[in-house]
Amino acid sequence: MNAARQAFAELFGALILTAVVIGSGILAARLADGHEAVALLANTVATAAILYVLISVLGPISGAHFNPAVTLVSALRRETPIAVALIYLPLQVAGCVSGALLAHAMFDLPLLQTATTVREGPAQMLSEGVATFALVFAILGGMRFNPNAVPAIVALTIAAGYWWTASTSFANPAITIARAMSDTFAGIRPIDAPGFIAAQFAGALVAWAVAAFLFAKEKS
Amino acid sequence: MNAARQAFAELFGALILTAVVIGSGILAARLADGHEAVALLANTVATAAILYVLISVLGPISGAHFNPAVTLVSALRRETPIAVALIYLPLQVAGCVSGALLAHAMFDLPLLQTATTVREGPAQMLSEGVATFALVFAILGGMRFNPNAVPAIVALTIAAGYWWTASTSFANPAITIARAMSDTFAGIRPIDAPGFIAAQFAGALVAWAVAAFLFAKEKS
Amino acid sequence: MNAARQAFAELFGALILTAVVIGSGILAARLADGHEAVALLANTVATAAILYVLISVLGPISGAHFNPAVTLVSALRRETPIAVALIYLPLQVAGCVSGALLAHAMFDLPLLQTATTVREGPAQMLSEGVATFALVFAILGGMRFNPNAVPAIVALTIAAGYWWTASTSFANPAITIARAMSDTFAGIRPIDAPGFIAAQFAGALVAWAVAAFLFAKEKS
Amino acid sequence: MNAARQAFAELFGALILTAVVIGSGILAARLADGHEAVALLANTVATAAILYVLISVLGPISGAHFNPAVTLVSALRRETPIAVALIYLPLQVAGCVSGALLAHAMFDLPLLQTATTVREGPAQMLSEGVATFALVFAILGGMRFNPNAVPAIVALTIAAGYWWTASTSFANPAITIARAMSDTFAGIRPIDAPGFIAAQFAGALVAWAVAAFLFAKEKS
Repeated sequence: MNAARQAFAELFGALILTAVVIGSGILAARLADGHEAVALLANTVATAAILYVLISVLGPISGAHFNPAVTLVSALRRETPIAVALIYLPLQVAGCVSGALLAHAMFDLPLLQTATTVREGPAQMLSEGVATFALVFAILGGMRFNPNAVPAIVALTIAAGYWWTASTSFANPAITIARAMSDTFAGIRPIDAPGFIAAQFAGALVAWAVAAFLFAKEKS
Repeated sequence: MNAARQAFAELFGALILTAVVIGSGILAARLADGHEAVALLANTVATAAILYVLISVLGPISGAHFNPAVTLVSALRRETPIAVALIYLPLQVAGCVSGALLAHAMFDLPLLQTATTVREGPAQMLSEGVATFALVFAILGGMRFNPNAVPAIVALTIAAGYWWTASTSFANPAITIARAMSDTFAGIRPIDAPGFIAAQFAGALVAWAVAAFLFAKEKS
Repeated sequence: MNAARQAFAELFGALILTAVVIGSGILAARLADGHEAVALLANTVATAAILYVLISVLGPISGAHFNPAVTLVSALRRETPIAVALIYLPLQVAGCVSGALLAHAMFDLPLLQTATTVREGPAQMLSEGVATFALVFAILGGMRFNPNAVPAIVALTIAAGYWWTASTSFANPAITIARAMSDTFAGIRPIDAPGFIAAQFAGALVAWAVAAFLFAKEKS
Repeated sequence: MNAARQAFAELFGALILTAVVIGSGILAARLADGHEAVALLANTVATAAILYVLISVLGPISGAHFNPAVTLVSALRRETPIAVALIYLPLQVAGCVSGALLAHAMFDLPLLQTATTVREGPAQMLSEGVATFALVFAILGGMRFNPNAVPAIVALTIAAGYWWTASTSFANPAITIARAMSDTFAGIRPIDAPGFIAAQFAGALVAWAVAAFLFAKEKS
């Protein structure tokens, strides 16, 4: 694949993914009328569905990371060259932020917003570390044993993550930045974002180490 | 496949698809008793489920378009001959309209109705453009990299679309016409239909252009 | 496969399927506390899930019909010998009735019940005809083009059917008899059962005819 | 696969599985605000999703039992050596208990708890027997006819099990112990645990016998 396509796939996938996460949160919260469990269920269905789609159609082009924590681990494993990783990172952030703007535009909301949802404290940060660990762990295990199932594996890991972690599993530093710019169902107060991002990278690094042990190929 | 089967598959698939979209909307709205998020969740499950089924069993016969925007792009890509496309279009509209009538008959409602749900304004039209873009983009990407996954890809693109776009992702000019004839959960006021349809074709054309860049086969 | 295994698979699959349909209806109605759409959503998830499982593990043994309407069409297509079909029918009924008893036992209800839910009138019967048509049509199309996908195709056809038909898609004469013996969420008044069953066989026969045209193998 | 990896996979998979079962129960109950059917639906989605993921990525290493009842049957079938089974059992229990602690930590709850949810009586025990029977039966059938589908088969068997059994289908002695240590949505009073566990082993043994008849390979 040529470089322009790779770059476009990462930017564009991050954009759509974020627009779905935030857009479905907006509609779900509106229609659910205070029933938060129903809203999160709809948010879960939409997010998992689009992850399956985006990884299926963009994975063969760019790897479909859409996520700096995934790109970091891929670079550490020497599967993504450092030069490529350094290009992916700003594209992922730009894509996610653009996705937030697109969601706001579709729902006729102010394009630029600052989130106010408080997500702080050690339990939240533990949750983000665990969530990102689970995501990276599942990706590496899927790539090792059943690459064709990776779209389903990622989609379902995040579907579960929305519910079993106390933070609803952002699990992605780029999308965390974008969600800080959306005062909607999926938002996070900007001051809480750095803690989330630090926890996400930490979780990804632990997954990298565990996977190196658990998913290494047998010596022949 | 012979021509009669192709024609029948397009007509018939459009009929069932529309009957599911409208029928499940009717039952969901009735049972949900004002909880719109629950109703849309049921509508999502039913629509995505039948899309998987119809594309699996009719795709090998006609391509399972059921959608003039998809047929247009297929013709532009020279995958569907112009003569075939011109036959598909009226069959798709006739199928969708018949599907609306079937849904009304099953729920003991007047067969002929005029929808009253207002869906207007630039944000709604942006949503339809984005929704149809996403649908056509996902189909072309799926056909390029993983044709066997296309039924799941389309089903899940629409499942997400019901939630992340402000218009709940009609994404189909033929079904838009049929929904204008159903004053139920899935309806759209006839006067709002032309704007939806224009936005749908525009989104499909953008997807055609993006896919030409992103999913082109490498020169060997 | 030997005959005893075939017989056991049909009996046993019908038993589990019915216990899931009725049991999940009981729990869903209890927990949903009057929110019928939520109850039907849970009933849908459980039913579709077990259909995928049962057809995956019993299909290779008996064909996993569990349904006299499916067996009738299979016999008409000369895929199931008449002698086998005549054995399947009572086993399917016995299995479904046993499944109702098992569900009642698990929920500590009287084993023998008579349903009181009214499901009558031409719209209901049209719905059952359409539902069974869709089921048989999807099975025949799946077997023609993608046999490995049949478990998913059947599961999702019924998932959609629970919502787009006004009768919630019984689509199975044997399970209709069992549901007449369960005064719970999934029940049907005995006097309404014959009409359902007639409509189911009629829908199955129409699907047989349509499939003969649409899914016939090309002459080579 | 070497022994250390096998051991780690069983411990770790049991940990994540339990953290998802309990964690998603906590969040679902919190957000559902008394709507138990919605809470159980979310619990179902999260549990089924993570089962698919864990079995996909850990199955090739350890078999992904995470469950003493599954390990017992696997040993009886001579697929897991007795020595390995005896190592798996304590790892499964330790993993499940650790998962409960992790869930509590993420939700900022006391780590050590004693469950108070009453789940007693013959109907509950029948339910657990049936639930574990169905799980083991589905695993053995899937392994016989379609090993690649086992992750989906297990996920969907449990998804259905949450609804069609009166006990919500614990179906796992190790997770039952862990759930006795969590006074949350998924909990079970310690005094009720032994009955559940006995019923689970009994159900597994019946499945073993039925599968020996139904899924035996034809003699050639």
